[in-house]
Amino acid sequence: MAKTAKIPVGILGATGMVGQRFIQLLEHHPWFEVAWLAASERSYGKPYAEAAKWKMKTPIPKKIASMKLSAAEPSSNPPKVIFAALDADIAREMEPAFAAAGCAVISNSSAFRMHPQVPLVIPEINADHIKLIDQQTWRKESGGFMVTNSNCSVMGLALVLAPLQMAFGIESLFVTTMQAVSGAGYPGVASLDILGNVVPFIKNEEEKMEEEAGKLLGKLKGKEVVPAAFGISAHCNRVAVEDGHTESISIKLKKKATAEKIIATWREFRGQVADLNLPFSPEEPIFYDERVDRPQPRLDIERGHGMTVTCGRLRPCSLLDWKFTLLSHNTIRGAAGAALLNAELLKAKGYLD
Amino acid sequence: MAKTAKIPVGILGATGMVGQRFIQLLEHHPWFEVAWLAASERSYGKPYAEAAKWKMKTPIPKKIASMKLSAAEPSSNPPKVIFAALDADIAREMEPAFAAAGCAVISNSSAFRMHPQVPLVIPEINADHIKLIDQQTWRKESGGFMVTNSNCSVMGLALVLAPLQMAFGIESLFVTTMQAVSGAGYPGVASLDILGNVVPFIKNEEEKMEEEAGKLLGKLKGKEVVPAAFGISAHCNRVAVEDGHTESISIKLKKKATAEKIIATWREFRGQVADLNLPFSPEEPIFYDERVDRPQPRLDIERGHGMTVTCGRLRPCSLLDWKFTLLSHNTIRGAAGAALLNAELLKAKGYLD
Amino acid sequence: MAKTAKIPVGILGATGMVGQRFIQLLEHHPWFEVAWLAASERSYGKPYAEAAKWKMKTPIPKKIASMKLSAAEPSSNPPKVIFAALDADIAREMEPAFAAAGCAVISNSSAFRMHPQVPLVIPEINADHIKLIDQQTWRKESGGFMVTNSNCSVMGLALVLAPLQMAFGIESLFVTTMQAVSGAGYPGVASLDILGNVVPFIKNEEEKMEEEAGKLLGKLKGKEVVPAAFGISAHCNRVAVEDGHTESISIKLKKKATAEKIIATWREFRGQVADLNLPFSPEEPIFYDERVDRPQPRLDIERGHGMTVTCGRLRPCSLLDWKFTLLSHNTIRGAAGAALLNAELLKAKGYLD
Amino acid sequence: MAKTAKIPVGILGATGMVGQRFIQLLEHHPWFEVAWLAASERSYGKPYAEAAKWKMKTPIPKKIASMKLSAAEPSSNPPKVIFAALDADIAREMEPAFAAAGCAVISNSSAFRMHPQVPLVIPEINADHIKLIDQQTWRKESGGFMVTNSNCSVMGLALVLAPLQMAFGIESLFVTTMQAVSGAGYPGVASLDILGNVVPFIKNEEEKMEEEAGKLLGKLKGKEVVPAAFGISAHCNRVAVEDGHTESISIKLKKKATAEKIIATWREFRGQVADLNLPFSPEEPIFYDERVDRPQPRLDIERGHGMTVTCGRLRPCSLLDWKFTLLSHNTIRGAAGAALLNAELLKAKGYLD
Repeated sequence: MAKTAKIPVGILGATGMVGQRFIQLLEHHPWFEVAWLAASERSYGKPYAEAAKWKMKTPIPKKIASMKLSAAEPSSNPPKVIFAALDADIAREMEPAFAAAGCAVISNSSAFRMHPQVPLVIPEINADHIKLIDQQTWRKESGGFMVTNSNCSVMGLALVLAPLQMAFGIESLFVTTMQAVSGAGYPGVASLDILGNVVPFIKNEEEKMEEEAGKLLGKLKGKEVVPAAFGISAHCNRVAVEDGHTESISIKLKKKATAEKIIATWREFRGQVADLNLPFSPEEPIFYDERVDRPQPRLDIERGHGMTVTCGRLRPCSLLDWKFTLLSHNTIRGAAGAALLNAELLKAKGYLD
Repeated sequence: MAKTAKIPVGILGATGMVGQRFIQLLEHHPWFEVAWLAASERSYGKPYAEAAKWKMKTPIPKKIASMKLSAAEPSSNPPKVIFAALDADIAREMEPAFAAAGCAVISNSSAFRMHPQVPLVIPEINADHIKLIDQQTWRKESGGFMVTNSNCSVMGLALVLAPLQMAFGIESLFVTTMQAVSGAGYPGVASLDILGNVVPFIKNEEEKMEEEAGKLLGKLKGKEVVPAAFGISAHCNRVAVEDGHTESISIKLKKKATAEKIIATWREFRGQVADLNLPFSPEEPIFYDERVDRPQPRLDIERGHGMTVTCGRLRPCSLLDWKFTLLSHNTIRGAAGAALLNAELLKAKGYLD
Repeated sequence: MAKTAKIPVGILGATGMVGQRFIQLLEHHPWFEVAWLAASERSYGKPYAEAAKWKMKTPIPKKIASMKLSAAEPSSNPPKVIFAALDADIAREMEPAFAAAGCAVISNSSAFRMHPQVPLVIPEINADHIKLIDQQTWRKESGGFMVTNSNCSVMGLALVLAPLQMAFGIESLFVTTMQAVSGAGYPGVASLDILGNVVPFIKNEEEKMEEEAGKLLGKLKGKEVVPAAFGISAHCNRVAVEDGHTESISIKLKKKATAEKIIATWREFRGQVADLNLPFSPEEPIFYDERVDRPQPRLDIERGHGMTVTCGRLRPCSLLDWKFTLLSHNTIRGAAGAALLNAELLKAKGYLD
Repeated sequence: MAKTAKIPVGILGATGMVGQRFIQLLEHHPWFEVAWLAASERSYGKPYAEAAKWKMKTPIPKKIASMKLSAAEPSSNPPKVIFAALDADIAREMEPAFAAAGCAVISNSSAFRMHPQVPLVIPEINADHIKLIDQQTWRKESGGFMVTNSNCSVMGLALVLAPLQMAFGIESLFVTTMQAVSGAGYPGVASLDILGNVVPFIKNEEEKMEEEAGKLLGKLKGKEVVPAAFGISAHCNRVAVEDGHTESISIKLKKKATAEKIIATWREFRGQVADLNLPFSPEEPIFYDERVDRPQPRLDIERGHGMTVTCGRLRPCSLLDWKFTLLSHNTIRGAAGAALLNAELLKAKGYLD
């Protein structure tokens, strides 16, 4: 693809933490380039570097630093492809407006994830769900549509469950999360709440995990997704970690499987996009680490540029079948990188033409 | 009890973190006074203030600061009552030696917790188990004996399970811990391992939780304790918290119970020592906090001077019956305070006469 | 003083971090009792427990939990003694209004600290400055008046400098602070800004340190305070500590002094209130710790119930005379406790009669 | 340079934190390749992956993982170029032995930094000091020699002072450090000592800073380095940061300079190696950040792959001339990267031929 052929994209909510990640991850993207930025009204008209409290560890890309923020409205001349990094309340109004105006809205918010015509997609595991787009009224009327990715706490989990479901079937599982503060945005979690502390509550998070997991692992049947039928119980906690959600899991499979079999299943998993050469698709979606005390967020979140989920400590569970730990990068694999991979899938499947 | 009547006690492992807690908690104890301190060989003969890297937030009691460390041997003229805060490897040799020499060894180590003649005691829930002492050969031969308290991660859990077991019966439970670094002693966890991190592994901890819970909630039948028969699966993690173990729990009861009933059961629980007026027995062994985001280690560990366990977030579990969070102070209720309460129980029951 | 004789006090800004400290510290105060609480408009009429996000480690006092919040206005029937824990912007309007209405406004805000007729007081070092009150128009017209305490970063420093100034004179000093997050209130510092981080900037803090130190150590001459004339240069940093400001200091004295002399001067210092028996006056305002790696916030802030400042590491400076480290509790000695001690001084001197 | 022409290098102390950094930084080095590893006796003969507790965020390079550890002795067939990452005590014995055996010992330890014939080098500022090598007996007898880099706390400081010294002269300075835990190695600082804490003491660190700064900025005159004559006073503190030393500095210059002039001096500085194209030489050795609250370790340490020092907050000092903050990566620019840059300088100057 020639350099001039890059697809211009816009970012809604460009100044927030996920918006910043979009900008960082898109800096050298081979297919997309940022052409339009919007945030809340008080940022309107300002250069990005002034409007945003930049918190990434790499500098603001020069081109972006001086880019003026547009109004967050379909009338504000946005490109056809929009990454949306909005709070759910705002997304509920704004995302449909952009879809109705003909935009491909690739959303990270929770507002429409469970909407029956909106695909909730992790390309490796349910790329085929994007066909739901064809049911969307927006699509029919303006060509616009909406695609979502899941909550940061369920993304890595669903990715790791999918090959197990295919190989053995899943009966039920428990998951306890220890989630990073970056998942709450900026300013997000107050330092007085998390220094030397654990907060055993994240609003609506357990509900999202339980319902989104079912849709993600569900099957597209005709015009709808039939959710997967396993039992799931989630406990969500916030811990003093900057990036990376760690999860303790117990699982019961439908068919018995040895540890070797499970690990091999993870290691061999490439998923539904293996042959598409998507730039953000990691070589190994799932890495199994054999060291006894891994994965750890401080050491393992960067694997696969933040797109690989790391599993470890597979061991027998005295109640269900197996216990293990997983780690995923909550603002890359769990948010901006997830949306970007969705965009790449859409491009590869012709939805952005 | 007149001031002069205080019972002299010794501390084995007096310079470590749990040893320091013993000294701190015993400073104003109405029944006991520290009369003898021992630690590893290299401390022998030194004044305590020089031998110990004192890490408590209160100063070293003056009397203790200048007290010389004795050799950690029964020949070194120890008092009859010994608190042992030793690593398991050392405890395995040393604790029987002191018991054989006629001492009441009140141990915090894991070495003999599962020994069939050694009681593993949390006074509120299984004070009657101390009768196992009468089976001990040490007791018969020298008058000495051994009593243990449980691992810090299971102490708060067992305390909270006991009233549920009595009222409703327990079928099975999952527990995921987020444990403080003080549980690993000093220097213990390296800062590079825990700053901004979670370590999903604590050696032998899951095994201890699973087996000790059964013995703690077991029934004394004749000369032995028959362990409680519920299923239990534990996941243990270390987090960047100084003091206080937080645990996410899912539980299935034998009889159905409403949330109100469970909370009332906890709130009303006083346990087997309610009428003994033990100084370290908290007014409320279990506190249920109704705030949606509690308990939190930074805010709630000091409840009941560190002896009260706090529960919160009781809510339905989609797989078992109920989910909740608990918090206990791992070096007070989970270690030194636990041993101290055991000593008080022994005193009240005449075992220290 | 009979229990019924307690002086009723009100708190402006009662739901914030300093307001909460006031409530905590006043719970068992022998002279004062909380009778009136006010916060921002949205809290008006609510019970305190509902209006405040309580972040103290002790529970909300029962009486306070159900107390309804009043409007933050002089017309809202406040008691005569008001502790003000307001942001400077709000304090600028509100504190004079209460003083004009006849209240004794004991303020923790920066709004009027440098006002020539408002005393900036640390009782041990400049109790006599309260005579400035007599110059205040409010005092003359309504009997009301205003007294302030200093910024949390300069409080401990001034306390430690005062005896040196008296004994040896101070030529100049450098101070670099490493300040706790609680100094910024709640939510205050975002966790993403401070986990694993240092922020080398606190707005206006260096300016406050430099100017307030001069007034605190200044001399009351007639109707005004002549600031002390030493040179001072401050560097202020925020670190990942919950409570306790640590400061690295280099100092040049006018008269040469040995380390022994300096330490003795600190240890002997009792200050201008030694004979007043003020409840919050610590036995030792300054504690010198000889251990090579002290003071440390995690271990030493509670000394003297948070009212004692700890110094350590006195050693020669290759440029000025001496280097040392100091630590003070920023929300007790540096805020609520400071104001409370000021109130006690005012009571003892008859200003609250 | 053809791939086959890479210079084989060895690492002494290969399993420690700095040894691990060497391995990480050398993985793709265009000039050097790791051919030999040694650590303490108990690692001898083991594959590296088994001997080392790998704590880097990138995986162990495959070739290294299976490389067997050699004995740490000159007889153990080491290559001619040795990076030494040893504790000072061990370095004192071992480094001379390797130099005497004909090795170029490029040391990160403090043992010989102040030795009159051993150059203490930061290539940008005193590359010419390597001529001291010609005075070394080892060099004359076996061809071997020794070169050192400075302490991690003084490296960034010296780099930032050098252009100021050249342009304006330095009269004196104060520096207060807030140092990361990685500077103490592994396990190093205990988590109980640093979580929520500041430790105002690092053994010998202030002395090293004060003496090494003089030698680094000194002038090579004939056969020796005459230390720079400015005054310096250092306060060293440890904070809860993983990587990155932050320093608050006040400085007096010999010639007056405006802020613009100073910043320009830093920005234009390229140093003595600008024309050598050394792979680890950052494009900008010093970056001045104009944002009011920068530099910050969490956000800014990776600049220039960890080899650029970031300055910020230049503002007038009320006692000396200017105040500013600096940040440098303590295990890259301050340790392994520093040694690597020294090796590159030696190669470019023909000392490794």
